[in-house]
Amino acid sequence: MRVVTFGEIMLKLQPEGYLRFFQNDKMLATFGGAEANVAVSLANFGVDSRYVTKLPEGPIGQGAVNSLRYFGVDVSKIARGGDRIGIYFAEKGASQRGSVCIYDRDNSAIKKSSKEDFDWNDIFDGADWFHYTGITPALGRNVYEILLEAVKLAKKKGLTVSCDLNYRSKLWSRESAREAMTELCKYTDIICANEEDAKDVFGINAGAATDVKGGKLDLAGYEKSASELQKMFGAKYVAYTLRTSINASENEWQGMIFDGKDFFYSKKYLIHIVDRVGGGDSFSAGLIYSLLNGKSAREAVSFAVAASCLKHSIEGDFNMVSVAEVEKLAKGDGSGRVVR
Amino acid sequence: MRVVTFGEIMLKLQPEGYLRFFQNDKMLATFGGAEANVAVSLANFGVDSRYVTKLPEGPIGQGAVNSLRYFGVDVSKIARGGDRIGIYFAEKGASQRGSVCIYDRDNSAIKKSSKEDFDWNDIFDGADWFHYTGITPALGRNVYEILLEAVKLAKKKGLTVSCDLNYRSKLWSRESAREAMTELCKYTDIICANEEDAKDVFGINAGAATDVKGGKLDLAGYEKSASELQKMFGAKYVAYTLRTSINASENEWQGMIFDGKDFFYSKKYLIHIVDRVGGGDSFSAGLIYSLLNGKSAREAVSFAVAASCLKHSIEGDFNMVSVAEVEKLAKGDGSGRVVR
Amino acid sequence: MRVVTFGEIMLKLQPEGYLRFFQNDKMLATFGGAEANVAVSLANFGVDSRYVTKLPEGPIGQGAVNSLRYFGVDVSKIARGGDRIGIYFAEKGASQRGSVCIYDRDNSAIKKSSKEDFDWNDIFDGADWFHYTGITPALGRNVYEILLEAVKLAKKKGLTVSCDLNYRSKLWSRESAREAMTELCKYTDIICANEEDAKDVFGINAGAATDVKGGKLDLAGYEKSASELQKMFGAKYVAYTLRTSINASENEWQGMIFDGKDFFYSKKYLIHIVDRVGGGDSFSAGLIYSLLNGKSAREAVSFAVAASCLKHSIEGDFNMVSVAEVEKLAKGDGSGRVVR
Amino acid sequence: MRVVTFGEIMLKLQPEGYLRFFQNDKMLATFGGAEANVAVSLANFGVDSRYVTKLPEGPIGQGAVNSLRYFGVDVSKIARGGDRIGIYFAEKGASQRGSVCIYDRDNSAIKKSSKEDFDWNDIFDGADWFHYTGITPALGRNVYEILLEAVKLAKKKGLTVSCDLNYRSKLWSRESAREAMTELCKYTDIICANEEDAKDVFGINAGAATDVKGGKLDLAGYEKSASELQKMFGAKYVAYTLRTSINASENEWQGMIFDGKDFFYSKKYLIHIVDRVGGGDSFSAGLIYSLLNGKSAREAVSFAVAASCLKHSIEGDFNMVSVAEVEKLAKGDGSGRVVR
Amino acid sequence: MRVVTFGEIMLKLQPEGYLRFFQNDKMLATFGGAEANVAVSLANFGVDSRYVTKLPEGPIGQGAVNSLRYFGVDVSKIARGGDRIGIYFAEKGASQRGSVCIYDRDNSAIKKSSKEDFDWNDIFDGADWFHYTGITPALGRNVYEILLEAVKLAKKKGLTVSCDLNYRSKLWSRESAREAMTELCKYTDIICANEEDAKDVFGINAGAATDVKGGKLDLAGYEKSASELQKMFGAKYVAYTLRTSINASENEWQGMIFDGKDFFYSKKYLIHIVDRVGGGDSFSAGLIYSLLNGKSAREAVSFAVAASCLKHSIEGDFNMVSVAEVEKLAKGDGSGRVVR
Amino acid sequence: MRVVTFGEIMLKLQPEGYLRFFQNDKMLATFGGAEANVAVSLANFGVDSRYVTKLPEGPIGQGAVNSLRYFGVDVSKIARGGDRIGIYFAEKGASQRGSVCIYDRDNSAIKKSSKEDFDWNDIFDGADWFHYTGITPALGRNVYEILLEAVKLAKKKGLTVSCDLNYRSKLWSRESAREAMTELCKYTDIICANEEDAKDVFGINAGAATDVKGGKLDLAGYEKSASELQKMFGAKYVAYTLRTSINASENEWQGMIFDGKDFFYSKKYLIHIVDRVGGGDSFSAGLIYSLLNGKSAREAVSFAVAASCLKHSIEGDFNMVSVAEVEKLAKGDGSGRVVR
Repeated sequence: MRVVTFGEIMLKLQPEGYLRFFQNDKMLATFGGAEANVAVSLANFGVDSRYVTKLPEGPIGQGAVNSLRYFGVDVSKIARGGDRIGIYFAEKGASQRGSVCIYDRDNSAIKKSSKEDFDWNDIFDGADWFHYTGITPALGRNVYEILLEAVKLAKKKGLTVSCDLNYRSKLWSRESAREAMTELCKYTDIICANEEDAKDVFGINAGAATDVKGGKLDLAGYEKSASELQKMFGAKYVAYTLRTSINASENEWQGMIFDGKDFFYSKKYLIHIVDRVGGGDSFSAGLIYSLLNGKSAREAVSFAVAASCLKHSIEGDFNMVSVAEVEKLAKGDGSGRVVR
Repeated sequence: MRVVTFGEIMLKLQPEGYLRFFQNDKMLATFGGAEANVAVSLANFGVDSRYVTKLPEGPIGQGAVNSLRYFGVDVSKIARGGDRIGIYFAEKGASQRGSVCIYDRDNSAIKKSSKEDFDWNDIFDGADWFHYTGITPALGRNVYEILLEAVKLAKKKGLTVSCDLNYRSKLWSRESAREAMTELCKYTDIICANEEDAKDVFGINAGAATDVKGGKLDLAGYEKSASELQKMFGAKYVAYTLRTSINASENEWQGMIFDGKDFFYSKKYLIHIVDRVGGGDSFSAGLIYSLLNGKSAREAVSFAVAASCLKHSIEGDFNMVSVAEVEKLAKGDGSGRVVR
Repeated sequence: MRVVTFGEIMLKLQPEGYLRFFQNDKMLATFGGAEANVAVSLANFGVDSRYVTKLPEGPIGQGAVNSLRYFGVDVSKIARGGDRIGIYFAEKGASQRGSVCIYDRDNSAIKKSSKEDFDWNDIFDGADWFHYTGITPALGRNVYEILLEAVKLAKKKGLTVSCDLNYRSKLWSRESAREAMTELCKYTDIICANEEDAKDVFGINAGAATDVKGGKLDLAGYEKSASELQKMFGAKYVAYTLRTSINASENEWQGMIFDGKDFFYSKKYLIHIVDRVGGGDSFSAGLIYSLLNGKSAREAVSFAVAASCLKHSIEGDFNMVSVAEVEKLAKGDGSGRVVR
Repeated sequence: MRVVTFGEIMLKLQPEGYLRFFQNDKMLATFGGAEANVAVSLANFGVDSRYVTKLPEGPIGQGAVNSLRYFGVDVSKIARGGDRIGIYFAEKGASQRGSVCIYDRDNSAIKKSSKEDFDWNDIFDGADWFHYTGITPALGRNVYEILLEAVKLAKKKGLTVSCDLNYRSKLWSRESAREAMTELCKYTDIICANEEDAKDVFGINAGAATDVKGGKLDLAGYEKSASELQKMFGAKYVAYTLRTSINASENEWQGMIFDGKDFFYSKKYLIHIVDRVGGGDSFSAGLIYSLLNGKSAREAVSFAVAASCLKHSIEGDFNMVSVAEVEKLAKGDGSGRVVR
Repeated sequence: MRVVTFGEIMLKLQPEGYLRFFQNDKMLATFGGAEANVAVSLANFGVDSRYVTKLPEGPIGQGAVNSLRYFGVDVSKIARGGDRIGIYFAEKGASQRGSVCIYDRDNSAIKKSSKEDFDWNDIFDGADWFHYTGITPALGRNVYEILLEAVKLAKKKGLTVSCDLNYRSKLWSRESAREAMTELCKYTDIICANEEDAKDVFGINAGAATDVKGGKLDLAGYEKSASELQKMFGAKYVAYTLRTSINASENEWQGMIFDGKDFFYSKKYLIHIVDRVGGGDSFSAGLIYSLLNGKSAREAVSFAVAASCLKHSIEGDFNMVSVAEVEKLAKGDGSGRVVR
Repeated sequence: MRVVTFGEIMLKLQPEGYLRFFQNDKMLATFGGAEANVAVSLANFGVDSRYVTKLPEGPIGQGAVNSLRYFGVDVSKIARGGDRIGIYFAEKGASQRGSVCIYDRDNSAIKKSSKEDFDWNDIFDGADWFHYTGITPALGRNVYEILLEAVKLAKKKGLTVSCDLNYRSKLWSRESAREAMTELCKYTDIICANEEDAKDVFGINAGAATDVKGGKLDLAGYEKSASELQKMFGAKYVAYTLRTSINASENEWQGMIFDGKDFFYSKKYLIHIVDRVGGGDSFSAGLIYSLLNGKSAREAVSFAVAASCLKHSIEGDFNMVSVAEVEKLAKGDGSGRVVR
């Protein structure tokens, strides 16, 4: 079964360990991006995962292609051209010091791409599922239009369409996000989000004040928010991640899925964070994998949260875990014991 | 006072930090093995520590020899020859992701060794103590027979004989383990184990379900298990480590010793794990050091658990701590403050 | 506004990560010292920060100068000459294993410096504040006398004078410390300390046993101690850091300031430690910055503790945080969330 | 156009830089093998490159698969199973100190593979070319037979078949090599070799003593050797690499091709060696690429030698150069100037 | 004596050692740029060196500022603002493989700067010399105009003005270069160049074909070229670097200066290259230092070439050598012996 | 056969690769010293090698002990005590940039040692040979006297005594050296030196100007110098190393031995230097090994020069080569080819 994802993959530059920017003269140079993270995670689950973007010619763009190819992602539909790849500088936080993310992604190949770069009929050949996130339309009006064409065609061809709201205040305003996402969600079956995204993008106010920074979660508010969002677009499923940031080193992590009738909650994990980047993306990938394989909503949210829980223990944006490893945790073994 | 240990030392290949296998192109290349870990720990306590194994000629085998020599372990009785050193690939877990251990130890020099390789009369010259673990006889019938000859001679020459059950399901079946260990334990004065080993090797069922993965320990069950094990062989001491795996980053750690009459418990430590490999071996070493130096059972278990608690804060298989450092912790200073 | 600090900056040699000394063949080679740490932290807050010491000619001494210049510290008044820079070997602890600090600082340039090396009239040109710690006079009678001349002149020229008691048992006896600090504190407006320093240096016994290693803090005792200290010298402010060392990986951290009338407490933070070296120095810097900028005692202790809380999440001795980052935490956001 | 290669890919463990084995605790852990090196080089030239081997299940075997997939090599026909991957320890020489290569490849998955593991009809689907080296049949009688079946079928299906003699004295005797290679070469169109291989495998004595270690090359002897080899099997082309090992840091490197009538020589390069492993493999890849694309023998040897000259400037076994880079050098620009 | 330089400093991302881009996951992240390189080299010679550019706010721009401050460069006149810092990806060549340089410098702060960003009257306060290179006007019409204003004012205020032609074909055409440089050179006293630059920018054809790539230099052609260039602008001095690229690992390096009457040649060095980036910049810095300190043309070219010869043995763009080290080489000791 | 060496082992701090001091924040931290280098080299040749020095208690001194123990050096006679270990900072040169060596060795344990620290009767138990260098008596009058006692006793007990003149101008004057070495050489059978040492220490002027820095060697002058030296003390052998420093990356290296009658020259090697530190020490070790094993003077100088030639290809002070590797080179194979 083939899943297509579409978005921007960037060069990620990150100091070693917990160093601040330029505290020494070395940087980790890897690649990542919300949709690429989903594509890699799916490939690691054994799914035929096709990733679509535009990347410049030359060794820097090729580095991004190769980083995906390494995991078996199908890169044959990636358009090549343009001047540069987007870059983001990431600094890992610890304890009370939060992570820092600085974008240098203007004028990237994908941001300056046009409809001619993508033949969606060809791209969707053999595909069962199409996934995108709210970052993709935020890249520009042109990219939004490319994406809109894609979701419409996907819908028409009978693919399941999923999205992760992923609101990025550094990329667009709430107003622009609402306008674009409202149109796109019409063609979207499954919406992944968290309560903040729902508020930022669609103005869904869960009523009870949810003090995310203070670390308290209000399940009633979450259900209200998910319910409103589901109704807004008649989505088949709305899935929420519930993160409690105790501090940059410890988070609680849980998921919930709403099928228009019932709310299913996963187990809640207390996580010692190795790297939280890509946590939400690994949740989406887990959800897609499960539903694609005919699992129930309850099973899907359990698998998705276990997958993303494991992601937090892995360096980098990509979730390098197998289905067996996720299922072991989902079945309750989080003891971290060694088998010898 | 001289302690002899006998077993397999392997080349250990481990990704840096918390990386998964081949997440980058570097690996830590060190050496370790249960009995070698005990030997190094004893050398660090100032004991005259003689380690016996078989290693191939050439720079790879020599690397293992040198790694022991570095700590002052007596390597003069190591047999040389054979085709290869055993290898194990180790990946360090974190949070809910457990550590991974992959063996590539077939056809190692020690596995293919024969009685002619070891002159136990010479090896035991000047020795007071002989220690082995359940891994050594699991290496093959030939190694079991070499070991049996050794324990018999050790007993005859008046050495104290100790073992750590250390059941490895990847090396042999429970049935084979039971048969071999039953014979070996007849000549063994002091048995280190945990409740799982006792169940796996000797079928000792502690009755009350002890949910190790769930993190709950049942002291009554532990006592029942240790008591049965002690009776089975009339051992002078049976010592248990009690690990509660909260997750791969946090464990509780405690020890208990049974002298056939009384159960002595150490303090329980909550450990932030740097590296848990070698935890049990450092416990054995602490116990041997204490009893060799005439400490009481109560003192010995307190020292052994403090030693192995410190091991969890040290990278690699070897416990690089001094007697003074262990005693400082055993006496109650676990604050981690700096003296300046 | 210009702050002058005076003390010893050393070459710091530290194994990578949590390795023990010489566990591999690499060491981090950076520079640090209590007063230099304060100077760098102030420069990072945008203060005109002038640091005074003596360093040998040649690339090793120049390395220290450059490490300060990197952050914009004014190094123009550093004397050059002498034979060597002091060195300290530092090993980072974890869990129950404490950090280790080994000094090799005898015969350093600053220890062998003389009055002729420093023209305090010139050094204090344009300065508003002078800061030193109890380490500086501990370097030798000659350094004490240089410092005494400096504080007297500072006082005379109307600078605010602050100190951090920083008692170092490896450098001098309690008797020597008391004699020197009693004289110096006469010219000191603001004294930073903790309860142990107050006891070690001035014999102030807070009455109630405060079991620092056991992790319990007695606020009444702290107030009694600070109050006595304040009265002893008529200091404008006495500020205390209250550290509870749970273990080498987790500490609680709080601050208190006494203005001769009221005790103001900061929030208490539970810290996952990345590196605790320089924690006290970052507190002093935060306090100086705040008071220099006309903040109230309550605001100052809140800022100082937030600053030093962040220091614990940063590798190395220097606190690399901005005023904005400190204020964000002081205002209550310690969730470590990423802004994207 | 599709090229199929078949052989063993191993885990390569190598100390950093010019360190001797275990001089520090780190090793580069990459993958390589003569035929895999050819496959990767071809993929880097844009060829549809399919690599066939057998690798164990699990993360170590998967690491090898991913390392090929990274470069776009088609790994879909790799058989999975068996117990282990072959390992080789490599130490890089310098100046008068030669490189060291220690094999630990017994019992590898490919060595224990059987005919059932490979469906050559399926593997050759769409293929134009089949390449192997003398290392593959040296892995064992079973692998020789698998290979013999493959070359016969390849021949039958009209593929061009090429081989590199690659005699490895550590793997088999000259007699075994001669017997196997004589049979295999019957179905081989193009033979890559050097004078030593021709002598070791086929006993071709070039007459004039060629003192390879002394650094002198005798072109007449080379021509005689190549001529005999060509006649022996009626090969379409025999191509020789001519290496003069001045020392481990400097080599001269040249190539020659014989079409049964004329000898064509490439330019001779004086190389400052970064890494010479894979030098011969990159020559084979360059030759295959050129001939596959209809180049003349003269052009082919020029391209192949330029490609392998560049390989010597690249770390690791794989030749990471593009066609454009090779052509730039082949056309005469070896100045190493930067284009800015 | 104060020297002002003006240009673009970029973030430089470079794989470790001789690795190709993304051959592993690490990159060196340093800062460099032709004029900044000159400024740092001058600071290392003890000159009061003021560097002018525009850099974005935030930690990435600050990293560039700090990297200059580290060497004592005066950064007080650097404008802050704009969106990004220019980036360049650099791959170090070896043997026949040339270095690769990929620019991602569009839309950098300095490229989008305006006249308001620079108060040249203030910048030139206390200055004796102004230096720029041909890269600065290539950044855009706006930057050219800023620079033109600067050189005019410098001239008017009596500063010595020097430039390095530094033609970059990736930044502008020969026509644009000629137009801009013709105007700028009117106000320039000393022109550094090489024969290629003179041809590219001013169309000066040295007559005899100089085959730079082939490694032959034609001194007569060089003299003709320098002579024409000198006449064109009536420059006080024209100084040429004469590089013979034997390959990427070995270059010959010499300098020549023409005072309108005589040609003075430095010694010629055969260099084993560690890093050739910044070679020309270190020549300019050596020349400026010498002439600023009243050395003769002969002495200046000797010092400048020795300085830049040493630069080739140093990693990174910055020439980290002292006047004493340069003079030692200029006086003839290139034996590389250790003084102990 | 047992060889005893006596001297100072220091902590060596060296930037990575060719970096200048503090160019990044890492340093290699290893141990070395002329006599320790000889001791390790001998241990690597299989000799029973006993090294004598004094080192401080604690982990830094223990690091030095362990670094020797790693190679099997007998460390049982090392005295422990004192305040510090000597340190030396080393920067590796390249091309025209020479290596830099900065000592921080005052007040080291060995420098402050006294006769009571060494029981030479016990130390020489079972010994056949005693080796020292001119660095040892340069450490201070006390160390000279300890050494004098040792050489006298060695002579009396019939040991062969050898020394390497090793003049260090940073440690003592030529006058002091002459006085001390004249007395010590009376008891010395074999003197290793180079022409400069002979001139510096004993004022032996070889007549013809030998321009070492310019790279020309005058064999006649060498012979005259060696001859004078031999006569001065009636030494059994005088052995000279003949280094031509072409630059810091390339040296020529040859040896000569004089038996009072004939001059035997080794082959001359052109070396691409990896690390030249310890070159002379590895020559001494090669000579001692050969003569100890009854080789002729001709064979000894050939082996010694081959050994030290290989040392130049190895990182660090210790010569990590086996007898077989040296003999392979001495027999003429310097091609650096790989055996596979």
